[in-house]
Amino acid sequence: MATTVMVLNGPNLNLLGTRQPDIYGNETLADIEAACKKCADRVGLAVDFRQSNSEGELVDWIQYASQNSDAIIVNAGAYSHTSVAMLDALLAVAIPVIEVHLSNIFRRDEFRHHSYISQAATGTICGLGGLGYELALEALAKQLKTTQEA
Amino acid sequence: MATTVMVLNGPNLNLLGTRQPDIYGNETLADIEAACKKCADRVGLAVDFRQSNSEGELVDWIQYASQNSDAIIVNAGAYSHTSVAMLDALLAVAIPVIEVHLSNIFRRDEFRHHSYISQAATGTICGLGGLGYELALEALAKQLKTTQEA
Amino acid sequence: MATTVMVLNGPNLNLLGTRQPDIYGNETLADIEAACKKCADRVGLAVDFRQSNSEGELVDWIQYASQNSDAIIVNAGAYSHTSVAMLDALLAVAIPVIEVHLSNIFRRDEFRHHSYISQAATGTICGLGGLGYELALEALAKQLKTTQEA
Amino acid sequence: MATTVMVLNGPNLNLLGTRQPDIYGNETLADIEAACKKCADRVGLAVDFRQSNSEGELVDWIQYASQNSDAIIVNAGAYSHTSVAMLDALLAVAIPVIEVHLSNIFRRDEFRHHSYISQAATGTICGLGGLGYELALEALAKQLKTTQEA
Amino acid sequence: MATTVMVLNGPNLNLLGTRQPDIYGNETLADIEAACKKCADRVGLAVDFRQSNSEGELVDWIQYASQNSDAIIVNAGAYSHTSVAMLDALLAVAIPVIEVHLSNIFRRDEFRHHSYISQAATGTICGLGGLGYELALEALAKQLKTTQEA
Amino acid sequence: MATTVMVLNGPNLNLLGTRQPDIYGNETLADIEAACKKCADRVGLAVDFRQSNSEGELVDWIQYASQNSDAIIVNAGAYSHTSVAMLDALLAVAIPVIEVHLSNIFRRDEFRHHSYISQAATGTICGLGGLGYELALEALAKQLKTTQEA
Amino acid sequence: MATTVMVLNGPNLNLLGTRQPDIYGNETLADIEAACKKCADRVGLAVDFRQSNSEGELVDWIQYASQNSDAIIVNAGAYSHTSVAMLDALLAVAIPVIEVHLSNIFRRDEFRHHSYISQAATGTICGLGGLGYELALEALAKQLKTTQEA
Amino acid sequence: MATTVMVLNGPNLNLLGTRQPDIYGNETLADIEAACKKCADRVGLAVDFRQSNSEGELVDWIQYASQNSDAIIVNAGAYSHTSVAMLDALLAVAIPVIEVHLSNIFRRDEFRHHSYISQAATGTICGLGGLGYELALEALAKQLKTTQEA
Amino acid sequence: MATTVMVLNGPNLNLLGTRQPDIYGNETLADIEAACKKCADRVGLAVDFRQSNSEGELVDWIQYASQNSDAIIVNAGAYSHTSVAMLDALLAVAIPVIEVHLSNIFRRDEFRHHSYISQAATGTICGLGGLGYELALEALAKQLKTTQEA
Amino acid sequence: MATTVMVLNGPNLNLLGTRQPDIYGNETLADIEAACKKCADRVGLAVDFRQSNSEGELVDWIQYASQNSDAIIVNAGAYSHTSVAMLDALLAVAIPVIEVHLSNIFRRDEFRHHSYISQAATGTICGLGGLGYELALEALAKQLKTTQEA
Amino acid sequence: MATTVMVLNGPNLNLLGTRQPDIYGNETLADIEAACKKCADRVGLAVDFRQSNSEGELVDWIQYASQNSDAIIVNAGAYSHTSVAMLDALLAVAIPVIEVHLSNIFRRDEFRHHSYISQAATGTICGLGGLGYELALEALAKQLKTTQEA
Amino acid sequence: MATTVMVLNGPNLNLLGTRQPDIYGNETLADIEAACKKCADRVGLAVDFRQSNSEGELVDWIQYASQNSDAIIVNAGAYSHTSVAMLDALLAVAIPVIEVHLSNIFRRDEFRHHSYISQAATGTICGLGGLGYELALEALAKQLKTTQEA
Repeated sequence: MATTVMVLNGPNLNLLGTRQPDIYGNETLADIEAACKKCADRVGLAVDFRQSNSEGELVDWIQYASQNSDAIIVNAGAYSHTSVAMLDALLAVAIPVIEVHLSNIFRRDEFRHHSYISQAATGTICGLGGLGYELALEALAKQLKTTQEA
Repeated sequence: MATTVMVLNGPNLNLLGTRQPDIYGNETLADIEAACKKCADRVGLAVDFRQSNSEGELVDWIQYASQNSDAIIVNAGAYSHTSVAMLDALLAVAIPVIEVHLSNIFRRDEFRHHSYISQAATGTICGLGGLGYELALEALAKQLKTTQEA
Repeated sequence: MATTVMVLNGPNLNLLGTRQPDIYGNETLADIEAACKKCADRVGLAVDFRQSNSEGELVDWIQYASQNSDAIIVNAGAYSHTSVAMLDALLAVAIPVIEVHLSNIFRRDEFRHHSYISQAATGTICGLGGLGYELALEALAKQLKTTQEA
Repeated sequence: MATTVMVLNGPNLNLLGTRQPDIYGNETLADIEAACKKCADRVGLAVDFRQSNSEGELVDWIQYASQNSDAIIVNAGAYSHTSVAMLDALLAVAIPVIEVHLSNIFRRDEFRHHSYISQAATGTICGLGGLGYELALEALAKQLKTTQEA
Repeated sequence: MATTVMVLNGPNLNLLGTRQPDIYGNETLADIEAACKKCADRVGLAVDFRQSNSEGELVDWIQYASQNSDAIIVNAGAYSHTSVAMLDALLAVAIPVIEVHLSNIFRRDEFRHHSYISQAATGTICGLGGLGYELALEALAKQLKTTQEA
Repeated sequence: MATTVMVLNGPNLNLLGTRQPDIYGNETLADIEAACKKCADRVGLAVDFRQSNSEGELVDWIQYASQNSDAIIVNAGAYSHTSVAMLDALLAVAIPVIEVHLSNIFRRDEFRHHSYISQAATGTICGLGGLGYELALEALAKQLKTTQEA
Repeated sequence: MATTVMVLNGPNLNLLGTRQPDIYGNETLADIEAACKKCADRVGLAVDFRQSNSEGELVDWIQYASQNSDAIIVNAGAYSHTSVAMLDALLAVAIPVIEVHLSNIFRRDEFRHHSYISQAATGTICGLGGLGYELALEALAKQLKTTQEA
Repeated sequence: MATTVMVLNGPNLNLLGTRQPDIYGNETLADIEAACKKCADRVGLAVDFRQSNSEGELVDWIQYASQNSDAIIVNAGAYSHTSVAMLDALLAVAIPVIEVHLSNIFRRDEFRHHSYISQAATGTICGLGGLGYELALEALAKQLKTTQEA
Repeated sequence: MATTVMVLNGPNLNLLGTRQPDIYGNETLADIEAACKKCADRVGLAVDFRQSNSEGELVDWIQYASQNSDAIIVNAGAYSHTSVAMLDALLAVAIPVIEVHLSNIFRRDEFRHHSYISQAATGTICGLGGLGYELALEALAKQLKTTQEA
Repeated sequence: MATTVMVLNGPNLNLLGTRQPDIYGNETLADIEAACKKCADRVGLAVDFRQSNSEGELVDWIQYASQNSDAIIVNAGAYSHTSVAMLDALLAVAIPVIEVHLSNIFRRDEFRHHSYISQAATGTICGLGGLGYELALEALAKQLKTTQEA
Repeated sequence: MATTVMVLNGPNLNLLGTRQPDIYGNETLADIEAACKKCADRVGLAVDFRQSNSEGELVDWIQYASQNSDAIIVNAGAYSHTSVAMLDALLAVAIPVIEVHLSNIFRRDEFRHHSYISQAATGTICGLGGLGYELALEALAKQLKTTQEA
Repeated sequence: MATTVMVLNGPNLNLLGTRQPDIYGNETLADIEAACKKCADRVGLAVDFRQSNSEGELVDWIQYASQNSDAIIVNAGAYSHTSVAMLDALLAVAIPVIEVHLSNIFRRDEFRHHSYISQAATGTICGLGGLGYELALEALAKQLKTTQEA
């Protein structure tokens, strides 16, 4: 069976590309999903791509991933800064987690500098736009291969 | 088509009038909805009045309003103090937003003095009970008329 | 005798309309006074409209209002953030007080987010420009009528 | 009709026993539910045992309990530290509330030391594992009997 | 020899029942001692019940308990908030410690929210009045039995 | 020429006795002035008793006192908490200064606990009502006599 | 029987007059006791004058005073800044309490500006040396007479 | 008509030279005014030199200067640290503003390190005594010439 | 001429691989340099790889890079948390900057959570070990190509 | 008569060697006392070695030492972080004071980083175990000899 | 021998004029050096003008200046905000020190508001561009002349 | 080969004895070096004594010591309070480290109370002047002997 990565997207990311392109660029979430799938094919992974505005649903999906996926890429959006519940769910997960942010959160409002998600992530990639998702997939491809070989 | 204002009510506001009348008064949310509709008729607006205890659903509705309404009045209740997700949704909206609170939040607990919603609102009206909703409708009626004429 | 509302304006508000119109709009304080008087006529109130740059004089006027007016609308400007003396004067007053700010103070400098005046006000209206004064008058008209009938 | 206690469990508590047993022990949430029911029988109470990862659903249930239960036991998990909405719902409830935590939250991360729930609870029991739920039921049994007799 | 629990009471707890019954109830410390002894009999424990206004004497007793008792229940009263010396004594003790507070300290003054004792306690029970001592005894009875059997 | 003490009263103290008697008592400022004069006669001092709502005028009077009085008693009211200007004026004065407060400011709002005036005062008397002024006069009578004799 | 005032002195006050006379003056604690007794005679009170370096003993004495004295004057020295236990004992006392400090604590180290004792005191007198005790006795004489007459 | 600079002096600066010469030197405000006028003559400017202890009057003068002067030099004294009203008045002014302090405020009390005035000033000169005023005049002479030539 | 990326390494990174392999892994800085060169060849870039323990030398190199390189990858080590000088140098540079950290700095000491470098970086990659450098090179290869084509 | 050094040990230090040897080592307080006496003999000093769990008794002993000893070595244990009373006693003492801690307090809990004792000590030695006492004795031997010779 | 002033420039000031002219203007550091030399000639001083990106070298130069110069003008750039080492070097220097900043640091990032250098400087001049150096030279010329004449 | 201790001295310590003798005494760094060598001879150690004003050079030396010395004594001067780079270098070192300060840093400015070096040191000795270095050598002699014998 294919090695699968769940790609989780938090609140308001469904608006990508249609709003504030000066900050978030013109790429839509569908564009990012397509690029992720193409990149995943290239590195031999399957992708389970999801978006929700509900904190509870995102916690459900993390729990689901711990049984059905081999790794998680998570862009929690605004919940990065407020959700201890998502942190706890990720801490309970035994598979690798990479956090992605489209923009450099350290250059925005003070309250966006802190991320609960970072405390449960193997690594963080931010400020590189949609490309960040692809780099995360490449890193996971290498890590998962290393683990399986070991 | 009628100019429409979405009126959003956050968690526990469905309990209005039946609980702690010394703080929140005897008005129920249904009373406020009726008064809003009557006031909206008078100033030539339609009202889409909603309440939810779920942060995700409120984010969904804000996104929906950005396509289907001309303005938003929001009483986010407890989420005023914790929801960066609602703030982000409101920041992504191009229509006017007025924040309403029934009580004077500056006279209550310290942690209720700060509102994320205020950072995305054109204006704030608080401490005037259900009347605050009506004043917000009047303000929007004038602002929207001005915009349309310009 | 007519029901009277004292409308107090704090430091630098006499500059309105002639300076920084991008922040404060083109309306002058005279325009606001005229609009207040017209609105007051409509809702059956008299208005005693004043402005001062002196904290002591504003305290004097609040004390005077407690004997000679039925309500106070106060836009304390910069003194909102520093004047415990005005807070104490307002706390000693038995008539309703509504605080007004032309701009949304929560979107400006950190030290402008806190207002001593809010702790003594029945309600607060901010970010709605000169219209805020008129909404305050309408709210007072309803509240005072209710009180007198009771 | 039986005296009923709603026992509310917050996000990730459904993972109990299967994850991080060094911190949370080997007991599953089903084990705790069974022990609660047995204990409730012994002290003459009925138990309505629930778990959700959604903040909004937990608020709904608290509102429901205020009409259909005689007391609440709540282990809000991660929402203890972030949910003003649950605090407000509990403050609106006229029945006794006891807060339970499996581990001693004062010995974990700094941000877990503060609980909004504590401000609405009659009492708090923490660090005693699943036994804490049973002690809470015993305490409620005595308190509810005293009230009914009075 | 009987399994013994030292029950320590800090400053001013000897005043219980005779002062501020609206906060602390009508129960005297003697009432609590009697209830503890009765409860201890029921669950097969002996109780060594003490009270002192002196921080040094309480430290002496904790050191004594580490040699002569099997567990400690401690209501440190005001010293909960200031005594690092008691914390250190409890940290040096190898037997279980349960912290009890009669009232919900999280609903009182800010400086009463923090307890040094909590950092050395297995568990904490607060806000349940004198009943809290009995619940602590029941919890210890189960924990000590488990340990002895293992 | 008589030894003179300037007694300065800050903003809103002219309202004494007519407002909030539950906090400030029934004594008017005129009552306190009369009591001060009677007490001053008894201990051989003259009193120059003044009140102003203006920070600038109070600074003027402190400067005037430094030339024309032998000591100052100051109840700065709300300016105690905000006026660095009064602090500087008092620091420039070579005569004794005693600070008086009618109520115990340490039992009121947090922002009333700090007084700039205290940093320039020889002593502080608070919480003893109008009697505090008389005790200050007695203390000054003794101190000034000692100084003159030395 | 004579109306009695307990005068409590905290740690290191027994060193008065022999150490650091530049800060604390040349008066010994015995001098202050003698002056208190003389002053007490003049105003018709008896004095029970005590000093201890032990926090627990001071708590014991406050509890004793609540049964055997009519008022307390307390100079808690260093314990003013750290003792919640003494605060609690004083809060449990139904007789008047006046806090005295020899020096102006607001002009010394930052950590000496805050006093727990102030929260339980009717009034505070500081910076007037040994004279502060006498002024406190005079104030109590007047207050107790008023109470007895009422 | 001559190019004019208003030189504003805040509270207590009229005491210069007669008080605390160890801190502020022997120069009086009249000496500084004379030196300013001489220096202004040399660089081709006129000076409008003023002092007030009243915050409101200083705000009035800043507003007046914006119509009648070409630049402002301001030594706000104690109001530097507390007056948002003066800050707002200066922010509304379109002419250059230079802030001057006689002493190095960064070497004095903590609360004197922060100046609201700095946020509205083109530049700040402090710690150079009366000479600071002259340097400010020289700087303005060059800046105003540059502007007029451009 | 080849497109060149300067890769800067801060203090103590020369120790990599020989110390604390549990935190930093077994890779030496020479290994990382070799991997970078190999990766750079693959994506068509040249690499100028440097390390220094001196803040001043690192600032010199950033200034040099602004003239002689097309992009910068910087792992500032401990200077990330303290060097405003490096931040200023990077802000003065017109070429892209990517920040790399070997470990997840958000999971280490509090004072390591803040990075001045982040404020000047296009993006940040952390927690992915030496692989982070390669991902940064890939990202720059894509960005530089896009820019040159545009 | 011999030159004497009082060596004071605070709460819980009597437990040394029998508890938590991983933190505090295997040395008992008796071992340290023996080593101190041997070291004191070598450098020509007498030692008065004491331990108490009571803050008041430690204050008593410091006062006693000021009359009967030539120097103090103090390991205040937990009271280092909370006792202003011991600080005041030490400040009133004219003889040299050296503070000793067995472990490096800067590597333990945040609240153990601050020591009131340090503000009254000539020097501090920490983290060197029982050897720290001996080094303190050697330092005092040199300092006292220098003083006596001068 | 000529009276000499060392003019020290910190990190990145060598970039002046070639980068970010909107913030720092078009003047290069060579322009400033030339203007300083011309101004120094006019007021009878010699100038020793230096720039370094290295904190250690700047400390070396301050120590050198204390032996070989009569005064120091220092624009420490980014090290103003972080270098306690430069502060200590300046505190050890017996000659006058004037701090200069080209821009108004109080209008930039929060962390640029604090300067360690200010604590060792006689005076500070900021926000006046390169002219600030010349004003500093004029001030020193007057101060040094006064000292030499005295 | 001899057991060697590197003794590192940070910025401005080369000025010792020639500047501010009231704070740092008359001893020069050469005096301390001589005393260290004499003491080292006595206890059988060799000393490698160095001083630098450059943070980078000090980091280089710590790395060098980890290969060529058996222990480090470090007086980092001002870098104690700011250098995370030195902390990291010391954390990477496997040999014992003792921190020395000539003066009691806890009695100086607030920002000097915190030392990064303390987090990597086995022990700290401060406030005992040059003698502190000798005590550190004695402690290391004992510790190194113990280790070699074990």
